[in-house]
Amino acid sequence: MPNTDYQNIIQQLYEQIQSEENFGEVATYIPELSKVNPDYFGIHLTTIDKREFGAGDHLTKFSIQSISKVLSLSIAYELLGDAIWERVDVEPSGTAFNSLLQLESDYGIPRNPFINAGAMVICDMLLSHFKHPDQELLQYIHDITGNSDIQYNPLLAASEKKIGYRNFALCYYLKSFDNIENRPEDVLDFYFKMCSLEMTCQELSHVFLFLADENFLNQHHKPVITLSKAKRINAIMQTCGFYDESGEFSFRVGLPGKSGVGGGIIALHPDKYCIAVWSPKLNAKGNSYKGMKFLEMFTTSVESSIF
Amino acid sequence: MPNTDYQNIIQQLYEQIQSEENFGEVATYIPELSKVNPDYFGIHLTTIDKREFGAGDHLTKFSIQSISKVLSLSIAYELLGDAIWERVDVEPSGTAFNSLLQLESDYGIPRNPFINAGAMVICDMLLSHFKHPDQELLQYIHDITGNSDIQYNPLLAASEKKIGYRNFALCYYLKSFDNIENRPEDVLDFYFKMCSLEMTCQELSHVFLFLADENFLNQHHKPVITLSKAKRINAIMQTCGFYDESGEFSFRVGLPGKSGVGGGIIALHPDKYCIAVWSPKLNAKGNSYKGMKFLEMFTTSVESSIF
Amino acid sequence: MPNTDYQNIIQQLYEQIQSEENFGEVATYIPELSKVNPDYFGIHLTTIDKREFGAGDHLTKFSIQSISKVLSLSIAYELLGDAIWERVDVEPSGTAFNSLLQLESDYGIPRNPFINAGAMVICDMLLSHFKHPDQELLQYIHDITGNSDIQYNPLLAASEKKIGYRNFALCYYLKSFDNIENRPEDVLDFYFKMCSLEMTCQELSHVFLFLADENFLNQHHKPVITLSKAKRINAIMQTCGFYDESGEFSFRVGLPGKSGVGGGIIALHPDKYCIAVWSPKLNAKGNSYKGMKFLEMFTTSVESSIF
Amino acid sequence: MPNTDYQNIIQQLYEQIQSEENFGEVATYIPELSKVNPDYFGIHLTTIDKREFGAGDHLTKFSIQSISKVLSLSIAYELLGDAIWERVDVEPSGTAFNSLLQLESDYGIPRNPFINAGAMVICDMLLSHFKHPDQELLQYIHDITGNSDIQYNPLLAASEKKIGYRNFALCYYLKSFDNIENRPEDVLDFYFKMCSLEMTCQELSHVFLFLADENFLNQHHKPVITLSKAKRINAIMQTCGFYDESGEFSFRVGLPGKSGVGGGIIALHPDKYCIAVWSPKLNAKGNSYKGMKFLEMFTTSVESSIF
Repeated sequence: MPNTDYQNIIQQLYEQIQSEENFGEVATYIPELSKVNPDYFGIHLTTIDKREFGAGDHLTKFSIQSISKVLSLSIAYELLGDAIWERVDVEPSGTAFNSLLQLESDYGIPRNPFINAGAMVICDMLLSHFKHPDQELLQYIHDITGNSDIQYNPLLAASEKKIGYRNFALCYYLKSFDNIENRPEDVLDFYFKMCSLEMTCQELSHVFLFLADENFLNQHHKPVITLSKAKRINAIMQTCGFYDESGEFSFRVGLPGKSGVGGGIIALHPDKYCIAVWSPKLNAKGNSYKGMKFLEMFTTSVESSIF
Repeated sequence: MPNTDYQNIIQQLYEQIQSEENFGEVATYIPELSKVNPDYFGIHLTTIDKREFGAGDHLTKFSIQSISKVLSLSIAYELLGDAIWERVDVEPSGTAFNSLLQLESDYGIPRNPFINAGAMVICDMLLSHFKHPDQELLQYIHDITGNSDIQYNPLLAASEKKIGYRNFALCYYLKSFDNIENRPEDVLDFYFKMCSLEMTCQELSHVFLFLADENFLNQHHKPVITLSKAKRINAIMQTCGFYDESGEFSFRVGLPGKSGVGGGIIALHPDKYCIAVWSPKLNAKGNSYKGMKFLEMFTTSVESSIF
Repeated sequence: MPNTDYQNIIQQLYEQIQSEENFGEVATYIPELSKVNPDYFGIHLTTIDKREFGAGDHLTKFSIQSISKVLSLSIAYELLGDAIWERVDVEPSGTAFNSLLQLESDYGIPRNPFINAGAMVICDMLLSHFKHPDQELLQYIHDITGNSDIQYNPLLAASEKKIGYRNFALCYYLKSFDNIENRPEDVLDFYFKMCSLEMTCQELSHVFLFLADENFLNQHHKPVITLSKAKRINAIMQTCGFYDESGEFSFRVGLPGKSGVGGGIIALHPDKYCIAVWSPKLNAKGNSYKGMKFLEMFTTSVESSIF
Repeated sequence: MPNTDYQNIIQQLYEQIQSEENFGEVATYIPELSKVNPDYFGIHLTTIDKREFGAGDHLTKFSIQSISKVLSLSIAYELLGDAIWERVDVEPSGTAFNSLLQLESDYGIPRNPFINAGAMVICDMLLSHFKHPDQELLQYIHDITGNSDIQYNPLLAASEKKIGYRNFALCYYLKSFDNIENRPEDVLDFYFKMCSLEMTCQELSHVFLFLADENFLNQHHKPVITLSKAKRINAIMQTCGFYDESGEFSFRVGLPGKSGVGGGIIALHPDKYCIAVWSPKLNAKGNSYKGMKFLEMFTTSVESSIF
């Protein structure tokens, strides 16, 4: 497919969606996030041969939130191997992102590493392994992209921690099932910091390219993850990346992907490209309204999904 | 990939798995099914260019059970379009195949068309539309393959109906939410008949090839389903095809697929092939123990999944 | 307490409540029941020394519905003894009267004999024991009161059966757990018939006096139930008689009692009296709005509860 | 009933139960509690006319644990009136004492003040009202009995806090629903302190006599609580005092009561007596094995329950 197609399709869909009503709502439960201009809308696609296509606010930083959970999982999986699946499962949850319900019947084993509880267990693993997991995570990202502009937003992390009572409940609950090794406060500090990562759509599509490109090498000319592990992370994104809208995303878009409450979404077509979209207003299931719409129209237009 | 590779890999994995212990158990709750020889093990792969590769008992008929739900869905989706999604969702359930739990909180809308409740709603749609949906379904299959050997097993259908109290409960429950139009007895008659379809692994891999091959034409030289709908059915298989082991299958095998309690599994690689495996002993989640094992080792060996 | 007090208090509260707005709603899911004049309001109290006090429509027949479940339990308990508790528990359910949720986690053992599922299991026991349990139940009532005017309403039973899909679901679900011995259709026939019993408030207060009066003898000069069993049935009414409003009734009224969806309520003060109230409009939890109000004000006025 | 009867019955049942096998298990999840000698067994009954009857280890101190929740409720109810019911319900929960399940569906309103979540909300109310709620609670108890030997066990409180992760989870979860006003850490400090109260069976039967005796006056010759409020607390004990064994206790014993994980139980017969039993080994539902057995046999022997 020639360059111009991607650019034309992205630009055209961007304009079409901009002209339509946005039925989403900005998440208000994180005060800092609710201050973001709700009209932002950006798209950026990077192919595995490094061609790039962007539209709208694709160069503006925003809070990637839960999208960061794919990165912590990648580090933990490469580092600790299949042992991690003894403490977290790979099944879609069928419930909301912060539900405590299933943990009770599942004896403290989170359904997957992308719901909050599962991401906390992964954070706990990294905390047991690294002295400064936050610095290691940042280094990991910088090593992938060579772009040291990517940083945490400590104000946002503090803002989330201050009102994150349900996340405290989740983490103490996991601890009560012996599925957290470290102090819950320390796990949550790292968890909130990780979620406060800020990137542009362009940066996101660069960072996650390693999951689409099986020959990807980082700045030190090393593979980021083995092919088999990358495929499995993609599989988990496919079934669990969008909370209780994961089936819907798979159905409409047909790509593995991951959303964040800041309105960002990444999706990737193995062997082809990684795409990031961002628009802060969310649908009822907590995923970017315009982002979901764009990606559905995009894969329909390019007639290309993994199915 | 040359022919010989598929055949060698299939034969080799067949022999390896045959030599290992089978930790599965035959489902006992359907008396007729429990009479099947538990040692059967067959595999058959058909590529979209009609090359075929088989091993073991791939030419022996067995009860395809829930695999049939993909066929009823295909007919209903092509016939009625996206209107069907008003009565059944496309989300993984996170619970067992015959759970009534979620129906209560979801107000009678089944999570997806592959759990029992969802399949009953689809059966109800076909019952409202066709005078003899069972004959239409059989015709549909015969039109796809040109093989009129594929038939129902009325004894098995009667056996399941006789002890299918939980399915009666599910269907009356759906009716109480106004999500069944016809008489529950009639819906169940069709449902049990559909599940009693018998095929060989070879026949299964022929029947479902239309979901892998976008240029597939049936015996009347007509497409079975539009490309866009086929992709969406594949997406639902990917997230919901294996009950509460759907994530695990996606993670380990990386293909869309569907299992049945008779021990059969189909899986397909879009644009490449459709594969069917069969071994009656099931793992704890109700999916063929050897079948799951084979498919994981197979996609690892051929280094090819959709991710 | 002299006669006049009860009569004055009942009359006064009757008038006060009649003058206030009725915020209840008539149950509409049973067509026959929804035809009843919603303005009926009657009260009748009978003391263990056979003094009687009534007000309003206390001599008008109505459908006692679930109140009948106390009678089937009494027969089964006296007949079969503590063996019945192997198939039904005595715990409050914490959920709605027709919930299927708990049955799944409780492996088919209903929480108590007053939720629909529990009453069906009791009906099944009587069906296994009697050739014509419906006739036995009627005889039991006639023997208690000597009043053969008390009868079933076959039209109402038929009306409920016709739309009772959720009850069919419950009964088949119980059958799937092997907790129903007979054919679900037969169990439901008896269940719906039992619920269609019609009585006046006066008749109700006569029928249930045997649970308040430890020296009660029926028309054949025989005790209806042993004292120890009567106390235990009262205990179950106290904790489970009002579905998920049982705690509220215990808290506000302080007497063992049982409600029906027809708007009737019986309550009894051991060693003192049995009282029946009736008003068809129900509160959000499915219990008579005026009935609950009257009983709370009544036990407050007479300063007498079991606590 | 003459004095001798109570003493004989208590002594006789004590000896009988001592001679039988104890099928209970000491709770191990609180390290300090698991150190208690499991063979202790004591009973003490105090009548409203101040006659006393004891047997076994009725003068040995033990940790009253959740029995203390009746005291905090009494203070809060008398102080704040029916406003407290806006933040906690009076319904039996149908689930275990520390379940988070229902809080999710009930939007953070605990089912009743005796499950952990409900008791925390009551603690939070007292914390908002008093500068030193722990001192107020102790003063309240000393005022009732004139016995200043009753104290907290700070070591036990610390022990529970150290491993009370699930209680931390519950409290943060309530906070996330805005049903905790103070800092969760402070609420839990008071909660654990309250649960660490130590009393003998004799002291317990003295302290709770005010709920059985409507003319009870404390050391300052003042009523502890209004009659109407006492009756309602008794009603809540009747339906909710024994977690998911509340129905069973009501059924077998027929008195309002409250158990603690330390193996203590209080029960009371309005207008007659308050009885306390203690034996550390618990049944599967978390209530004293011997205590439950004794109380069932006791109310059967004296032929006296509220029903």
